[in-house]
Amino acid sequence: MIKVSVMYPNAPEARFDHDYYRDKHMPLVKARMGDSCKYYTVDKGLAGGTPGAAPVYVGMGHLFCDSVAAFQRGFGPHAKEIMGDIPNYTDQKPVIQISEVVVGKE
Amino acid sequence: MIKVSVMYPNAPEARFDHDYYRDKHMPLVKARMGDSCKYYTVDKGLAGGTPGAAPVYVGMGHLFCDSVAAFQRGFGPHAKEIMGDIPNYTDQKPVIQISEVVVGKE
Repeated sequence: MIKVSVMYPNAPEARFDHDYYRDKHMPLVKARMGDSCKYYTVDKGLAGGTPGAAPVYVGMGHLFCDSVAAFQRGFGPHAKEIMGDIPNYTDQKPVIQISEVVVGKE
Repeated sequence: MIKVSVMYPNAPEARFDHDYYRDKHMPLVKARMGDSCKYYTVDKGLAGGTPGAAPVYVGMGHLFCDSVAAFQRGFGPHAKEIMGDIPNYTDQKPVIQISEVVVGKE
């Protein structure tokens, strides 16, 4: 299993509509990717690691797929539509990382 | 549910023992935290978001807890022991973020 993490930096003036991201954007991604996305998770940044510190990322979404190829097959054909939706909830440019899930949730 | 993400930057010369992290460190954290950590996940960085790009984080661990207070209650008394184990698998200083789990795995 691999995980594609899309992490939105928490700039001081960052705009991020958490409701839109949860209710519109991520369901759109899942609908377009179909079974090539097994499931996804969504995080809202609360705090950093030291008292009073801001979170590094204001929001994050994680797409779980069987393989990098499965992700590309599911995401590629819809990339333009999905990326085009980003300005509807944020002005931040996401940091993207692909990881191997070494230990996942059962 | 909250999630404490411990993210190890992927510096060019970063040392990170993924086996130790999976087999020793994270089980130690769970053993010490007991039920205050509901479960955890572990990621190994594979790639960044553009072709040929390196992952931002070489490895990540995520602790899922009922609340920030539950995390602090479970982690606090063992922080010294847990932090003291870090040099056994990496020379990187982790970036830590606490997030609210907006959408989790069922």
